[in-house]
Amino acid sequence: MQRWKLTLEYDGGPFVGWQRQDNGLTVQQRLEEAAETLCGGETPVQGAGRTDSGVHALGQVAHIDIDKDLRADQVRDALNFHLRPDPISILEAEPVSEDFHARFSAIGRVYLYRILNRRPPPALDAGKVWHNQRPLDAEAMHNAAQILVGNHDFTSFRSSECQADSPVKTLDRVRVRQAGEEIHVDVAARSFLHNQVRIIVGTLETVGRGKWKARDVKKALESKARSAAGPTAPPEGLYLVSVKYPDDEDT
Amino acid sequence: MQRWKLTLEYDGGPFVGWQRQDNGLTVQQRLEEAAETLCGGETPVQGAGRTDSGVHALGQVAHIDIDKDLRADQVRDALNFHLRPDPISILEAEPVSEDFHARFSAIGRVYLYRILNRRPPPALDAGKVWHNQRPLDAEAMHNAAQILVGNHDFTSFRSSECQADSPVKTLDRVRVRQAGEEIHVDVAARSFLHNQVRIIVGTLETVGRGKWKARDVKKALESKARSAAGPTAPPEGLYLVSVKYPDDEDT
Repeated sequence: MQRWKLTLEYDGGPFVGWQRQDNGLTVQQRLEEAAETLCGGETPVQGAGRTDSGVHALGQVAHIDIDKDLRADQVRDALNFHLRPDPISILEAEPVSEDFHARFSAIGRVYLYRILNRRPPPALDAGKVWHNQRPLDAEAMHNAAQILVGNHDFTSFRSSECQADSPVKTLDRVRVRQAGEEIHVDVAARSFLHNQVRIIVGTLETVGRGKWKARDVKKALESKARSAAGPTAPPEGLYLVSVKYPDDEDT
Repeated sequence: MQRWKLTLEYDGGPFVGWQRQDNGLTVQQRLEEAAETLCGGETPVQGAGRTDSGVHALGQVAHIDIDKDLRADQVRDALNFHLRPDPISILEAEPVSEDFHARFSAIGRVYLYRILNRRPPPALDAGKVWHNQRPLDAEAMHNAAQILVGNHDFTSFRSSECQADSPVKTLDRVRVRQAGEEIHVDVAARSFLHNQVRIIVGTLETVGRGKWKARDVKKALESKARSAAGPTAPPEGLYLVSVKYPDDEDT
């Protein structure tokens, strides 16, 4: 039995999220089906982050145990073959020791949120960005975002359905920058609460369009009530960029 | 009657190309339908470049005459409203004089070709790049491409269905560069022959994978026969980036 670390990209659009559930197709289910075709038996897949319905991944990580003698490129190519035509692509398969766990071994996660900030709708990036027609001030958003960096009780920034034991998290980085017609929000932490990035973006958008000042973000954080923060930004702008593990080289 | 210059973006995937035809939905047809809903009568739309089935545009230009007193933002927003939910977006509408013609006034066109050069298939950019699994040498492609720059008889680089009177064109620029996992081919000319960019890319790919040398590209050009050049690269990697007019500021 060999444990494999899989790094994968997917378009979240056609899926009801990462985690297997009864109400629609999920990324985990399609991966498990592909793995079962390859292995000839039930093959559970564990993911590092349970992305929501419509959320994309550039570098999700999962692990899987395969009781066959295969090279890394064979694992990657065979899974990709069986995943067709779904928009899920295994970028890399690496053999890892059996104590590696995609979710519990992870020590960092990076998300990107893309806002297309212009009046005309996206044609080429439909479903891949939050189309926001209000003129947004990226610099004001960035400055207000710095209030959230560090160790805080993020009760105001988690969904009412969040199942985490504690609302206390450490946000390592929030960077907001203009990128042509887009505004990119780059967020890093060891782990996140449910909807945390999307509520952060929804709150920063309220600052970007001038309705809120940085001090209102501070007040929202200190209120420790979901209703005190801004709305949850839509899923289609969100990307799980990468997951970090202790053995990763610093790059 | 006011003539409008429209700059537009579209995903070529769902369309059988720009130009109206009987065998499927085209961008021109959808624009004309949207314009007719806005204007209440037949409203022909003239495009600068007749992109093929599956080819995308970041900055196609078209013109249209509207017999209504409208502001530029109203023309843009009303057309976008009537274009929904098709992946066509009017980026800008500008009033122009009646001697402006999107096609015949154009003095330059820029195309981008995106090759995703990696083993795993694209998930997020499916249909937006040419997925090419062979390792390609972008520098060799760039060097060979310089043979094509300048004024030449491009008979070897046009489709057998090309209706242009003359196969002689002046290629102003061909730049090939590595961009992460992608190879980008940036091509500029006053105008192009049918399939010219795709045959150039298909030929350069033959160089990129080491099957051809630069001298083979020279031979292909000098042979003046379509069969002497490489294959036609697939449409999904091609983007009409911009169209230039005499009155444009140099940017």
